[in-house]
Amino acid sequence: MKTLARDHAGLDVLPYADCLRLLAKAPLGRISFMSDGDVVIMPVNHGLDGTSVVFRTAGGSKLRVASDAGVVAFEIDGYDWETISGFSVLVTGRAEQVLDDAEIARLEQLDVRPGLVGAERPFWMRIRADGITGRTFG
Amino acid sequence: MKTLARDHAGLDVLPYADCLRLLAKAPLGRISFMSDGDVVIMPVNHGLDGTSVVFRTAGGSKLRVASDAGVVAFEIDGYDWETISGFSVLVTGRAEQVLDDAEIARLEQLDVRPGLVGAERPFWMRIRADGITGRTFG
Repeated sequence: MKTLARDHAGLDVLPYADCLRLLAKAPLGRISFMSDGDVVIMPVNHGLDGTSVVFRTAGGSKLRVASDAGVVAFEIDGYDWETISGFSVLVTGRAEQVLDDAEIARLEQLDVRPGLVGAERPFWMRIRADGITGRTFG
Repeated sequence: MKTLARDHAGLDVLPYADCLRLLAKAPLGRISFMSDGDVVIMPVNHGLDGTSVVFRTAGGSKLRVASDAGVVAFEIDGYDWETISGFSVLVTGRAEQVLDDAEIARLEQLDVRPGLVGAERPFWMRIRADGITGRTFG
């Protein structure tokens, strides 16, 4: 994997195209946001739609943060403990509920892994990315 | 793994002792906090000291959030794609820098995996947990 630069901590910065490729390939990531004064982090099965991370939710806090046009982050990472190497990609942006029927029909065609979380998840959410950055280490 | 209850989303709630066991076993988790109006999520190699998550950092935003007695979350998760099952454990609390020399000497004895992140990380941080919760799915 080619890298372009190092950040202030000496980590290799991943090119943008590699960040998108890794986001599209990873079946699962983590969303984080403020909820009632606490930071929460929750795993979600996601897909990539252009440069937006999309996922289904059952409602609750993830849907509430969308209705507030809330600031969120989404992260994926991966490690190889044999070579002691890994990567992480961070998406920062705002979450919103997807309400348009045609858009929902299109998102239903994405390969978003169903069923890891047992509960029904009727709502689609989109994270509009303000920034997508990645790093490799090891 | 025995479970006690289900949460509002129908997920199995992990007993507290299982959360601590999983936190102690996982070599790596993710810390999240607000930084300059954005939510950030960063992977860290951590250890468990009592009910506190501890880790090393090179400085930067993770150290700044500690100096602000900042609200943070820490998460670990794991998945088995063959059985489509997994877990996540969430620690919410406040981060602080560990400054006491005797305490630092004790933390140095913990099995916190070094070296995944290449940069030097001279500072120890502690997340004092206000809440530790876990869920299983699949």
